[in-house]
Amino acid sequence: MTGRQAGLAASRRSTALPVSPIRRLMPLAEEAKARGRRVIHLNIGQPDLDPPPSVMQAAVDATGERLAYAPSRGLPSAVAAWVTYYRHHSIEVEAGDIVITGGASEALSLAMLATCDPGDEVLVPEPFYAPYQGIAGVAGLRLVPVPLGPGFTHPNPEAVRERITPATRALLICSPSNPTGTVYRREDLIALGQVARDAGLFLLSDETYREIVFDGPPAPSALSIPGLDEHVVVIDSVSKRFNACGLRIGTIVSRNPAVMAAVADLAELRLAVPVIDQLAVARALAAPEPYIGTVVATYRERVAAVVAALAEIPGVTCHRPGGGFYVVARLPVDDSERFAAWLLREFALDGDTVMVTPMSDFYLTPGRGRDEIRIACVHDPATLIRAARVIGAALAAYPGRTG
Amino acid sequence: MTGRQAGLAASRRSTALPVSPIRRLMPLAEEAKARGRRVIHLNIGQPDLDPPPSVMQAAVDATGERLAYAPSRGLPSAVAAWVTYYRHHSIEVEAGDIVITGGASEALSLAMLATCDPGDEVLVPEPFYAPYQGIAGVAGLRLVPVPLGPGFTHPNPEAVRERITPATRALLICSPSNPTGTVYRREDLIALGQVARDAGLFLLSDETYREIVFDGPPAPSALSIPGLDEHVVVIDSVSKRFNACGLRIGTIVSRNPAVMAAVADLAELRLAVPVIDQLAVARALAAPEPYIGTVVATYRERVAAVVAALAEIPGVTCHRPGGGFYVVARLPVDDSERFAAWLLREFALDGDTVMVTPMSDFYLTPGRGRDEIRIACVHDPATLIRAARVIGAALAAYPGRTG
Repeated sequence: MTGRQAGLAASRRSTALPVSPIRRLMPLAEEAKARGRRVIHLNIGQPDLDPPPSVMQAAVDATGERLAYAPSRGLPSAVAAWVTYYRHHSIEVEAGDIVITGGASEALSLAMLATCDPGDEVLVPEPFYAPYQGIAGVAGLRLVPVPLGPGFTHPNPEAVRERITPATRALLICSPSNPTGTVYRREDLIALGQVARDAGLFLLSDETYREIVFDGPPAPSALSIPGLDEHVVVIDSVSKRFNACGLRIGTIVSRNPAVMAAVADLAELRLAVPVIDQLAVARALAAPEPYIGTVVATYRERVAAVVAALAEIPGVTCHRPGGGFYVVARLPVDDSERFAAWLLREFALDGDTVMVTPMSDFYLTPGRGRDEIRIACVHDPATLIRAARVIGAALAAYPGRTG
Repeated sequence: MTGRQAGLAASRRSTALPVSPIRRLMPLAEEAKARGRRVIHLNIGQPDLDPPPSVMQAAVDATGERLAYAPSRGLPSAVAAWVTYYRHHSIEVEAGDIVITGGASEALSLAMLATCDPGDEVLVPEPFYAPYQGIAGVAGLRLVPVPLGPGFTHPNPEAVRERITPATRALLICSPSNPTGTVYRREDLIALGQVARDAGLFLLSDETYREIVFDGPPAPSALSIPGLDEHVVVIDSVSKRFNACGLRIGTIVSRNPAVMAAVADLAELRLAVPVIDQLAVARALAAPEPYIGTVVATYRERVAAVVAALAEIPGVTCHRPGGGFYVVARLPVDDSERFAAWLLREFALDGDTVMVTPMSDFYLTPGRGRDEIRIACVHDPATLIRAARVIGAALAAYPGRTG
């Protein structure tokens, strides 16, 4: 019977996947709502903004197309739109350098599968977007953390070098970063690119939040750094820039032909990405609109409001992010997951409570992030300020308060 | 320099993926067209039929939805539509037994990842849908072939038992089968289910072509066999039944809660399946239409036309498939890939040539399939009959003819 039972359990690799604190907190949020509380969700990177009208119109128009399999690499017209989009950002790529993917998630998975083999190590500045860990795990890879610099700046290239082993195959960065809002400057990319070149590593660059930068132009792309054509693999997505998470459209981009051949072979196994979704974004990609400017202005205002409101709470610190739409705050608490659960279970301010993301999940180094939370600025400023007030009042009452 | 160069090659696992003969033949087809030839494509499982009008209307309506991330398991309304669809087929499942996927391709990948670990073996009746091999390869699994019975009937359960080793974890069947059209009868599923039960194996059942059966009702689902709840994982897709390949919507279905928890965890890593595509098919799934009956009648007529036309060609044999829309034919040739290439390079009948799928790719046993081709009945009967005439004339002229 033991053998039989073992035969019917799920695979070890799936049961080994990290369980996110959000999964544990979600039932508590539902219970709080059932008790009549308003839960302000600061936990999800799901924008509250509408996509550009051109995206919705293009989606309607696309329903007139035949619903045949697209080519595995993407519909030629959609790939051409991406080439045009990148050209607007002074990134010169050809159609053959691009494969359209099911969002950044599939792009990340394809990037890891195409560049790394089971047992390989991937260096990643921490804190990092938590799902990297599970995606790497499914690909059989080990993430090795490198600390970001002081104030969530780019990691010190020497700190990267020190962690390179014979098993190291890639460095995975995210700029602007989810969760920290770190924007890698051109010189940061050059320095990290030099490390990648010296050690023969891939530089996997997640540029999902490219345009959402608060001071100055969009974040420089790793593709714009000379001499790194063989190294750079960009992961991209329209989810945030077009507020179109539900379309699930991204890309993987590299000028390394061996990598793109491998990506295309892997992409062929899932046949294609949906036609309507590819076409929905193609028009907006090819013809830049004022839309993205209003998105950036919106997040700039919101992030400033959150940072200012948090600054008024005794014992709370945070760095103003350079881009993205998250704010990481350090709280005077014993454990931010316990605090997050307590907020949902025990606390309300005039009927309002908040759901925050504990940051422990965004670190691999044990113990790190235990006093940090991530706030997603996916509400209007008044709601975000209200949420910060709830956090402030909660901290005054929380039994696990430290310092 | 060697180390550096090695660092920039694609991963071993991606370069180890089998290259399909179709990939090698595709440039030849393009060249033939460039020389002014008409190429009748018999090689792709891309239906020429239109999806039901309700699907297109639902897609248009869905563009009015917010494009937010769907839940990883699927939009509740879409999952409910699948529950209703399965109930119409007398398959009682609950919402928690279903995860909506990016077509059968993602369902296959999730099924393998959730049930098997690297190094595990999966038994598969051959010939089988060729991409199984690459999907298994990426998941680190080894496919072990079991021959189908005479006339492409279900495999002998004893032949399955004989191939079970301590590493065997699952049996992967496809009914109606791509490429052979084998429809597993209820008693076949019971017998194979008994093998799975005795050995503690998962029974992964690809039921993409469920309704496309030429004699009698839809193919019985593995989910309808009692006593196999822990074992059965169904892979499904709307691509063929709704002629909606471009939507990329499928499901993975199991009553084994550990497996579905693992599938959900894996699905969370890719966040969600597109909203518009999920909703496009929900309405048609929930309210069965006469549509599928006309699809079945269409393929019944086409398959009969192809089988009859092939029967007139000296030296050619084929079994009439019980379902699906492919016909596997045995030809008097030295090598069907060489013949397929020669058709495109050298042969035309009044300007027409054909592209067929060599079957070697659908077998793991070396040498098998070398005299077989697969014909996809994705054209009207007149075109298919014309294509068979081209094949007949080509065989009379082919220098590598045998027997």
